[in-house]
Formats: sequence, C-alpha cells, structure tokens
Amino acid sequence: MTHPFYGHNHIGKSRSALGTVTLHSVDARTGEPLPGPFFQATREEVDAACRLAQAVFPTFSTLAPAVRAGFLDTIADELDALGDDFIATVGRETALPEARLRGERARTSGQMRLFATVLRRGDFLAARIDRALPQRSPLPRPDLRQCRLGVGPVGVFGASNFPLAFSTAGGDTAAALAAGCPVVVKAHSGHMATAEAVAEAIHRAAERTGMPDGVFSMVYGGGVGEWLVQHPAIQAVGFTGSLRGGRALCDLAAARPDPIPVFAEMSSINPVVVLPGALQARGAQVAQELAASVTLGVGQFCTNPGLVLGVRSPEFSAFVAALCQRMAEATPQTMLNRGTFGSYCHGVQALLAVPGITRLCGADSTGGLAAPQVFQAEARLLLQGDAHLQEEVFGPATVVVEVADRAELLQALAALRGQLTATLIGEPDELAACADLVALLARKAGRVLVNGYPTGVEVCDAMVHGGPYPATSDARGTSVGTLAIDRFLRPVCYQNLPDALLPPALQNANPLGLARLVEGVSTREALA
Amino acid sequence: MTHPFYGHNHIGKSRSALGTVTLHSVDARTGEPLPGPFFQATREEVDAACRLAQAVFPTFSTLAPAVRAGFLDTIADELDALGDDFIATVGRETALPEARLRGERARTSGQMRLFATVLRRGDFLAARIDRALPQRSPLPRPDLRQCRLGVGPVGVFGASNFPLAFSTAGGDTAAALAAGCPVVVKAHSGHMATAEAVAEAIHRAAERTGMPDGVFSMVYGGGVGEWLVQHPAIQAVGFTGSLRGGRALCDLAAARPDPIPVFAEMSSINPVVVLPGALQARGAQVAQELAASVTLGVGQFCTNPGLVLGVRSPEFSAFVAALCQRMAEATPQTMLNRGTFGSYCHGVQALLAVPGITRLCGADSTGGLAAPQVFQAEARLLLQGDAHLQEEVFGPATVVVEVADRAELLQALAALRGQLTATLIGEPDELAACADLVALLARKAGRVLVNGYPTGVEVCDAMVHGGPYPATSDARGTSVGTLAIDRFLRPVCYQNLPDALLPPALQNANPLGLARLVEGVSTREALA
Repeated sequence: MTHPFYGHNHIGKSRSALGTVTLHSVDARTGEPLPGPFFQATREEVDAACRLAQAVFPTFSTLAPAVRAGFLDTIADELDALGDDFIATVGRETALPEARLRGERARTSGQMRLFATVLRRGDFLAARIDRALPQRSPLPRPDLRQCRLGVGPVGVFGASNFPLAFSTAGGDTAAALAAGCPVVVKAHSGHMATAEAVAEAIHRAAERTGMPDGVFSMVYGGGVGEWLVQHPAIQAVGFTGSLRGGRALCDLAAARPDPIPVFAEMSSINPVVVLPGALQARGAQVAQELAASVTLGVGQFCTNPGLVLGVRSPEFSAFVAALCQRMAEATPQTMLNRGTFGSYCHGVQALLAVPGITRLCGADSTGGLAAPQVFQAEARLLLQGDAHLQEEVFGPATVVVEVADRAELLQALAALRGQLTATLIGEPDELAACADLVALLARKAGRVLVNGYPTGVEVCDAMVHGGPYPATSDARGTSVGTLAIDRFLRPVCYQNLPDALLPPALQNANPLGLARLVEGVSTREALA
Repeated sequence: MTHPFYGHNHIGKSRSALGTVTLHSVDARTGEPLPGPFFQATREEVDAACRLAQAVFPTFSTLAPAVRAGFLDTIADELDALGDDFIATVGRETALPEARLRGERARTSGQMRLFATVLRRGDFLAARIDRALPQRSPLPRPDLRQCRLGVGPVGVFGASNFPLAFSTAGGDTAAALAAGCPVVVKAHSGHMATAEAVAEAIHRAAERTGMPDGVFSMVYGGGVGEWLVQHPAIQAVGFTGSLRGGRALCDLAAARPDPIPVFAEMSSINPVVVLPGALQARGAQVAQELAASVTLGVGQFCTNPGLVLGVRSPEFSAFVAALCQRMAEATPQTMLNRGTFGSYCHGVQALLAVPGITRLCGADSTGGLAAPQVFQAEARLLLQGDAHLQEEVFGPATVVVEVADRAELLQALAALRGQLTATLIGEPDELAACADLVALLARKAGRVLVNGYPTGVEVCDAMVHGGPYPATSDARGTSVGTLAIDRFLRPVCYQNLPDALLPPALQNANPLGLARLVEGVSTREALA
C-alpha cells in the first residue's frame, strides 16, 4: 500500500484533525489494522463542513449545467486514473476481488459521466412555461414559468457493500452534485482509506474545473452522522445501509425543527417466483442461475434474492433439491467486514429459531467465512406476516417457500412488505396469464423482472432502485439511474419576471435548447 | 337551505352512521347551528373506508388514463351543476360572498378538467425505455422500461379557507384521483354541509362513469384524522392548514411502522420587497394595491402578504403612511369561523406583546369582525430570527420592516424561513440589478413574483404552490397546478417483460401516443 494516508477530515478542500478520537481501518481478511489513523470529526468540524456547503450552494446550484457536467466528467477521469495501489487498498478493506473492484470503479465513473449527460440534456430542469394572458376574463393570467433548483446541501452515507459505486463518489453523491447540491459525506467506517483516496480524486477534479471550495466535504467517525442529519444547513440525506440505521436517520430528520427528506435504501428480500412451466422446462437451470445470483459477491447485494416461491409439485421439490446442491457447491468466503459477518451469522440464527423454518443445506459459518445456506419456511409464516421471514439476511442465504396453489401464491405475495425487486421466472405461455401477478408485484417493488435475476442493477434512465418501505424510506425515489437526481431538486415558479432575471432554462430565447412544456405542449422553440 | 342533509359518513358510495357523537355546522355570521347533525366517524368506519380504498386501488390505478380523465371531467360537470342552494349553503358555513364562491367553484371544476387534460396528455407517466443490448461486453444490458404508478390510497385534509378549491374536491383530491389513488377525505369541520354536497357530486360522477366503489370516501369528525394518517392502507397525505396541525400529521406519519409522506401546506408570511425606485415612482399606488391584497377575502389566503420590507427613506415612510391609510379604509369583516377569528385575535396579541413591534394602524377586532391592521417591526427582530415575526397571522394584517440599506435587506431576507411566495416590487432599472435578490428569494420560496401580488394562485402547469419548511412539509411538491400529481406517483421499472405484460405506456406500439425517453432521446415513435 504505497498510497499515503492522512486520515484528516475534509472541510471543503482543507484538511482538519481537531479531534482526539482516532480510528483504524482493518484488513477485511486478516483483521489487521491498516496504516492510519483516521481522526473522528468533532462537532465543530461537521458544522464547518455543513456551513461551507451552505455558503457555496448559491454559487454551485446556479452554475450552468454544462459546467457542473464538466466537473462530473473530471471526477470520472480522476477515478479512472487511480492506480493499482488504490484497487489494492479497496481490496484489503473490503475483501472484494480485484476484477469486481475494477468493474465497480468503471460503474462509478460511468455513473458520473451519465449524470453529466443528464446535465447537458437538461430535462432534469423540467422547464414549464405558461405565458401571460392579459386579455383573459374575468382576471388576466400572469406570465408563469417553472424550473427546478437543488434543494440545498446533501448529507451522504455510503454503503459498505459498494465501496465505490454507493459510497464517497457513488450514486447519491453523483446525483446530488448533478442537482447543484454540495455534498457532505460521512465516510463509511469499513473503507476509510478508500474513501480518502476517492475524496482526493473529487478534490482534484474540483480544482481542475474551478469549482468553488465547499462543494464536497467528508468527515470520519461514529456518531458524526447524527450531527450531519441534524445540521440546519443539510436539506436532504442519501443513505444506503441497514433498516435500523436508515430508520434511525429518518427519525432524526423527521424530528428536526425543519424536517428534511431522507432517501434511505434499506431492506429487501427480493422475492423470486418460479412458475410451474419453468420448473418443468428448465428447473435445474433456474436452480443453477439462482444459486449463482444468491452467492454472487458473497450475497452482499441489496437485490440478493432472499425468498424463492413456487407451487407445491414434484418439479418444485426437484428444483429445491437442485438449488441446495448448487448452493452446497459454493465456497464459504470472507465478507466485507467483521460486522457484516456477525450480522449474517445473527440473521441465520434468527431464522433457525423460528418454528416453521428449517435449514435445507449449508452449515453455521465459521472462521469468518460466510457459508451459503438455503432455508425452507412454511407458507403460513408469510401469510401471517411473520416479521423474521421478511427481514433481510445480508449474505449468501435464501429462503424457499412452497405454496399450495396459485391463490396462495397471490396471498403470500400480497403479504410481503415493500421490495426493491420482484421476479417472475416462467415460460411464455404461463407468463401470458400473469398480468395479475405482474400488477401485484409492481405495487410491491420498485423493479419487476421476468426471466432474470435481480442482482445486477443497470445504471440508466429507466432503472428504479427503490420501492415501498422498508425497501426504501420513500417509494417515490430511486438511488440508481438518472432519475435519482429528482430526489435533490425542487420546483420554483417565477411570475412576471423580466426575461433577463429568469434562469436561463426559462428565458424566451431558450439558450439551453431545452424541450419545454409551453402552454401544455412540449417544444424546443424559442418564444417571441 | 332546501338541500337535504344526511350527515352520514361515506364509505365509498355507502352511507354509515355508527357513531354516537354528533356534530353541527354553524352559520359563520350568526353562529347559529345549521340543520344536521353530522355523525362523527368511528374508528371502524375510518378503517372500512381505508380498506375499501386499498381494495379498489389495483383496479383504479390501472384504468386507462383517459377513463380516469372522464371521471374527473364528470366530477367537474357535477360540481358546475350544483344549484343556488349549494352556493347559499357554502356561504352560510364560511361567510364567503356569493361571487367569490361562484368563482371558486369554477376554479375547482376547472382544476378537475385540467387534471383530465394531464391524464390525456400522458406526460405524468414519465415513460422511459432503455432497450436490451444483448451484445454489450462484458455484460449484456436487459430491456428496462420505467413509468409511474399511483402510490396507493391518499388521505386528504381540506382547508377552511377554500371550502371548494382546497377541500373535498380540491386540488389534493383532484391530483390523487388523477394519479390513480383512491381518496379518503376528512371533511373539514368548518363546512360539513358543503363537504357532503360535494361528496355527493363526486359519487354521482363515479356512478355515471362506472368507477369501482371505493375510489372516494369521506369521514366526519375531530380525531378521525389521526386514524386516517395512521391507517396502514393510506400511503400519502395531503393537507392544507395550520403549521401546528400539519406538523402533528407529519409527526404521526413519520412515526408509523411504515412512514408515509405528508404533503402539508402550512405557514407562510409571503415577504414583499418594495424597492426604492418603485417607492419613488409609484409608492402610493403600490400601497393601495398591497392593501387590497392584504385585505382580499378578509386576508384569509395562504399567500397573504404578511411582511413588507423596504430600505429606510422618506419615500418608504410615505409609502407606509399610505398603506396605513388604505388599510384603515378597509372594513372589518366576518371571518370563516369563530376558530379562525380567535386565531387572528391571538396572533395579533402575540405580535403586540413583542418588544420592537408596534401597531401602526387598526384596532383590536370586536364583535367577530376582523379589523385590518398594520404593524411595524424593528429589523433586528428579523435579523435575529425572532419566531413571532415569522409566524403567519392568518387574517387582514401585515408587518412592515424598515431596513438600513440593501445589505441589511439581503440579511433580513436570508434570515427568513421557507415561504410559499416572495415578491419584488421595482422599476425596470433597479430590477435589472436584482439578480442576487431573485436568486435569494428562489432559495426561500416556491414562487417568486415581480410587480405583482401573491394572492391569486393560478392553476396551470407552471404554478408552484409550495416551498421550504414551514411553508410546506416537503419543498419538492406543489399543491396547486398540474405538477401536484407528482406527489402521488412513484416510478416502477420493468425488466425484460414480454410486451403484452407491460403497462400500455411502455409497450412497443406506444398505444397511448406518449413522448417517451428512449435511450435518452424523447420520441413519440413506436418501437420496432
């Protein structure tokens, strides 16, 4: 690890280490401390970062979108330019393999570039114009024009399982910066060295593109997250993590004198329904594919399929047996960190303690290696809304549920809580008769899949990585894909403003070349 | 009042009066009880209404948009067809004059028709399509398509001050029904007879257009609102009213096992800045116009200008004197109800009790008639963030603040909390130098006006009736205008679905003729 570490908090581009509490990052495989230390932020440091973000917000949020796009593109370049020592550091902190990390880095820089495209496209501004009707009776209509503006500084809490794509320069940061919102990141304690290197890359990009100081800050430490969420300058929060952690932030934000939105991506068991025709035609293949999805990345994905449903039949029994066989072939592996491993072991024990849930394959995890496991639960547990069954067990485990018939399948799905994803595996004929199932799953989940597996979340315009509670804290948002920018924007209406005082998005000449809704019709034309 | 009243709760199209608590509506001018009684809903009745809404949601939310549009158009027709006795009833319950009520009824039916237009236009579906890239390396891209779906049943709390446009069939109800969300209204206690007549009109429209039972319900009574917000079937809440009431609902919603969003439009003092040039050129005229805006409708508007700022000068002093003169000419009038009148008197007393605030004109209100009043507050109160000065006094009162110079003006505005509106009055030359002021006001308010008055909220695509807390509970929404529908929609992504299983908005043939974002480009073309 040749990369030098400072371990200081980032108050904009300044470094600060006022605190006395120090933290060490550890090697995920060996548990040995990595070079450090990292200085836990003091309340004053969190305050300074937030106030700096607030001070720079007016400037940053009104930069031309193309200028912010240049900033994002340059962050992407800086991330891509991080060397082998960086990849090695991330690997040591997370136990994730090099190929995965190189892929994730490409995803992260690609995400930045995609948001740059959104900025240049300009549809995020959602410009609407209703011109004055001075002759209207009984009252004239004034000139009214609407576009969107960033909500203000955003606090970002990265995830452990994507140290790049959902962390310091991840989707929440990209979306917030794109929206014109300065970002204050609470560095994830599981990869602080990674976070520092990424933060340095962002600072270099800010420097190279002439961004004002304070568009990005980062603080370290436990407990500092509360200060961040409660700080009056922070206007929204992005979070990816556990239900308990996310809900705690939501509760803090809701209790503020001025409540703010928290977009927390939290807990999902991602049901997969395997229909009879598919079981018959390709049950063994589905079992193999599903096992690969459950064990991919040691099961450490928000979209990991944690619940598999099928109608009782010899084919379903054979499928379950094949699934167990494939899962048993998978090797126990090191998880992201000891906390994650402990949670996995705890989740497994909680399942085992529920009457009506049995373990079909796998064994207790030992030596820090997560053992793949398959459980079977009685359908009544789902129908009765048993909470244990609905809780995400983060790791390479899944629960099989056999239902009596199609009616019970619908009942079981209806009893599920909100999900990130819901999947149907079926043959063309039987799928054609599944409009009711698709509609039901669409009410439960942010993404409905057919004949695919939920792991693998494409970053694009059409993606939704969200869903009803407890999948997220607000079903109206997504934390992956370009729509994620919407979480950090608010509409503003301008009435009777002189053209020169309007934001460029709304000026008569349409200098940004936007498609605008003018009198209810979308047009790119300039106004007279 | 020839209109017959039943006073029963509406569980869908059924009537129910299981409770033993009865309520009476009163004549706003005389305080005499009107014919009744109205039966306060029991918890079972609230539960029945919410469960019926939940049961009908799958059907209602997937009706073709044009079918829901027909429902909204028919509600509009039924509202327009309500006779003179209806207008008389609303007048007795609210003391609002007939001409205003006829205008408000037209606004309410016009709003329904505008949402019908939005449904036929289809842009609310926000369709996005990223087609499969099977050859992409290293991983193929699946077919991903996104559109929006209603969030689920919506609870609506009407406002007292717009018994039609912001109540039973008001903007929240129109937006929710347009989004495909069944609505359960908590009838406002200030106009229960009005609410019943409007609810009957909605039921007739539902019957005429073949809507499934349960798309609309209404319950009466105090305390029932808590049950509504806490009911598991309710997925979002619309509210217009006081800060205390709105915040209480937000807190209840945030404390649910599954928190839901509350869109509460609450408290705004709607600052108006009068610039030196305007004072010089037309101070007396501005004073007259402003007095008319402050006293319009007995000051009972959310956008009533409650704070007037200007830089110290002889012209500003003359303007304040002229404003007082005009306000003194306005006649004390009956407010919506005794509660509103009591709140106005209380708000005025609270202002008078603050050292640094003096009354320039007007007197204590007596005999149930609200007396127009002008106060002056020392600028330091704003600069110090004094809470009293920032609290809305709902009624025909406004507070004048004289600042030392432009720098202090900016400081005073920066110290304001979130607002529905913020207004600049100025001459062309001085406005041209006000880009900083406009930008500041856009960060504070949902609507920024130049040379107009904030009362009068146009219902159109470009309107924003929203703003940062405490103006609303979520600055990202509006409760007036077509964008209001967004509050009740969530995005759903469909991955690799057979064309026939996709919602029509996303099918290849584009049967709804939508403009869709396909691979990042907006197009109305069908896909091959």
